[in-house]
Amino acid sequence: MKNDLLVRACRRQPVERTPVWMMRQAGRYLPEYRAIRADIPFLTLCKTVELAVEVSLQPYRILGVDGVIMFSDILIPVEAMGMHVELTEKIGPQLPQPIRTQADVDRLGIPDPVETMPFVFDILRTLRRELDGAVPLIGFAGAPLTLGAYMIEGGGSKNYMALKGLMYRDPQVFHNLMEKVADTQALYLKAQIEAGAQVVQLFDSWAGELSARDYAEFALPYTQRVFDQVGDTVPRILYVNGSSHLLELMEQSGAEVLSIDWCTDLAEARRRTGNRVALQGNVDPCRLLGPRAGVVKAVQDTLTLAGGEPGHILNLGHGILPPTPVENAKAFVAAGQGRE
Amino acid sequence: MKNDLLVRACRRQPVERTPVWMMRQAGRYLPEYRAIRADIPFLTLCKTVELAVEVSLQPYRILGVDGVIMFSDILIPVEAMGMHVELTEKIGPQLPQPIRTQADVDRLGIPDPVETMPFVFDILRTLRRELDGAVPLIGFAGAPLTLGAYMIEGGGSKNYMALKGLMYRDPQVFHNLMEKVADTQALYLKAQIEAGAQVVQLFDSWAGELSARDYAEFALPYTQRVFDQVGDTVPRILYVNGSSHLLELMEQSGAEVLSIDWCTDLAEARRRTGNRVALQGNVDPCRLLGPRAGVVKAVQDTLTLAGGEPGHILNLGHGILPPTPVENAKAFVAAGQGRE
Repeated sequence: MKNDLLVRACRRQPVERTPVWMMRQAGRYLPEYRAIRADIPFLTLCKTVELAVEVSLQPYRILGVDGVIMFSDILIPVEAMGMHVELTEKIGPQLPQPIRTQADVDRLGIPDPVETMPFVFDILRTLRRELDGAVPLIGFAGAPLTLGAYMIEGGGSKNYMALKGLMYRDPQVFHNLMEKVADTQALYLKAQIEAGAQVVQLFDSWAGELSARDYAEFALPYTQRVFDQVGDTVPRILYVNGSSHLLELMEQSGAEVLSIDWCTDLAEARRRTGNRVALQGNVDPCRLLGPRAGVVKAVQDTLTLAGGEPGHILNLGHGILPPTPVENAKAFVAAGQGRE
Repeated sequence: MKNDLLVRACRRQPVERTPVWMMRQAGRYLPEYRAIRADIPFLTLCKTVELAVEVSLQPYRILGVDGVIMFSDILIPVEAMGMHVELTEKIGPQLPQPIRTQADVDRLGIPDPVETMPFVFDILRTLRRELDGAVPLIGFAGAPLTLGAYMIEGGGSKNYMALKGLMYRDPQVFHNLMEKVADTQALYLKAQIEAGAQVVQLFDSWAGELSARDYAEFALPYTQRVFDQVGDTVPRILYVNGSSHLLELMEQSGAEVLSIDWCTDLAEARRRTGNRVALQGNVDPCRLLGPRAGVVKAVQDTLTLAGGEPGHILNLGHGILPPTPVENAKAFVAAGQGRE
């Protein structure tokens, strides 16, 4: 590999400089992405190999990031499990028949990923070929808790009343659902690695809504179950949004890297997780809505807080926001790579 | 006062048992509240003294809570500052002319509370008379950051892009707005205390969206400014939602009591804040959507984690949710008072 900084940083090996990429780096802030999306629905883009490959590569060509993440959506395997999923980027996902009972859980399958989602692996194989070892290829999946939240709520949520209502009222049904989702995600990530992913990331957008105690009971065991089955052939990153109260538990997940939101600073996160994991993050994506000088300063502050030790990957604390000026995304990457 | 447990717990004085109340205890989960709201808009209810008094007293009569909070809305003083505010309980607040520039800030006044919001003080005086010393009367206001968020976003928000965009792009305009809001809130709370409030709480629903560093720069100084001006004649409670990363900073606010969400457990919060403040909270409101036995267990766990020392007020970690069964709200209060 020509530039393997990301893989080495994940393994806490020495690097010449900190690698940098951005969650949702293939996305609406790029005019080149919007041009492709103008003609086709979001889900069609996810399933059209040539176009998904193209938008995955855009941030590498335009910004020069140190890793390419495949373009996809975390709900693709939920559809493969047998739920009807409607994806519209603006409204967010809609699942018109949410899971509420054991019978609903029983109807879900644990799909063979290659059979049910062949396009995902075609995308990965094509990306590996196109990249030709330039930078590492990142695969990803949703963490069981977050997928479960979508499946039970039937979409996004404010208070997660349906999710937690089921969790507290009927914990066994909830655990049964989580097992099926975890096994689905493990197979899905293993197939991604076979198809060429050189790093994998689990996205847990909603686990931060749980108390530490509930996270330990209802979420962490299933994240562990995924990572256990996936094994350590490639580095595993765990992202949890709103995770200030969960860092010590996340460290027990089996991940080599914890990716954290912007709320806890990296020096504090390092203190709390010791030197047992690498850290990824964690500039507030809203910083990139401000002036360029502020972007550069935020990057420098973050690099300083990371302490210059091996085991840091510069990223945002959450996905890049659609109104972000491309110039600021460029400044973020350039500052991270010491070119600014 | 016949039952002054709440005031004593706020001051970390010995109590015979832990006092209990619930944020949003006057609200839609009560059929008696819905009956009154059926005929009148939300904002009219806030401004109609007799009805606001009635809904404030409902949870005391029905559940037997140890404190009565006046029924009102945190955006009432924002309207008094000169902004147009539309309040609908379901959609949430709408402010059609959000603050974006220094000229917008200049147009805002620092209103005389008694002149511009006389009904609030009539409500408090009537409540004191009706309660006749039965339990303490709680006044409240929105924290400057949260009011600023509504004023800049023009309503609720997902990512707080407008708020943080202004903060990072034009910090001086943001600070100027915060000063005006803080001075408004200080006058407002002082007038509430004069009208009979025996405890006051500042609600900061959105400050948890800020990193610890940004909270220290953009939010805490204005919460301190409010509490400094209010003084310590009655106990001051600071509630911040999503505050796991902010506890040490909140402790510097001047509040006698920190009210925290359900994410951090009380034993951990006690360790991090020492014995310098009382703690309020912190059962997940979603717990009250589950079975009654789970509600009782959650209360007992919370009391255990609080450690039996003086300086704990049992509450939820956020407002009670509209679909909560009244029986579960009763069980929460009864369990807290050792009647279950």
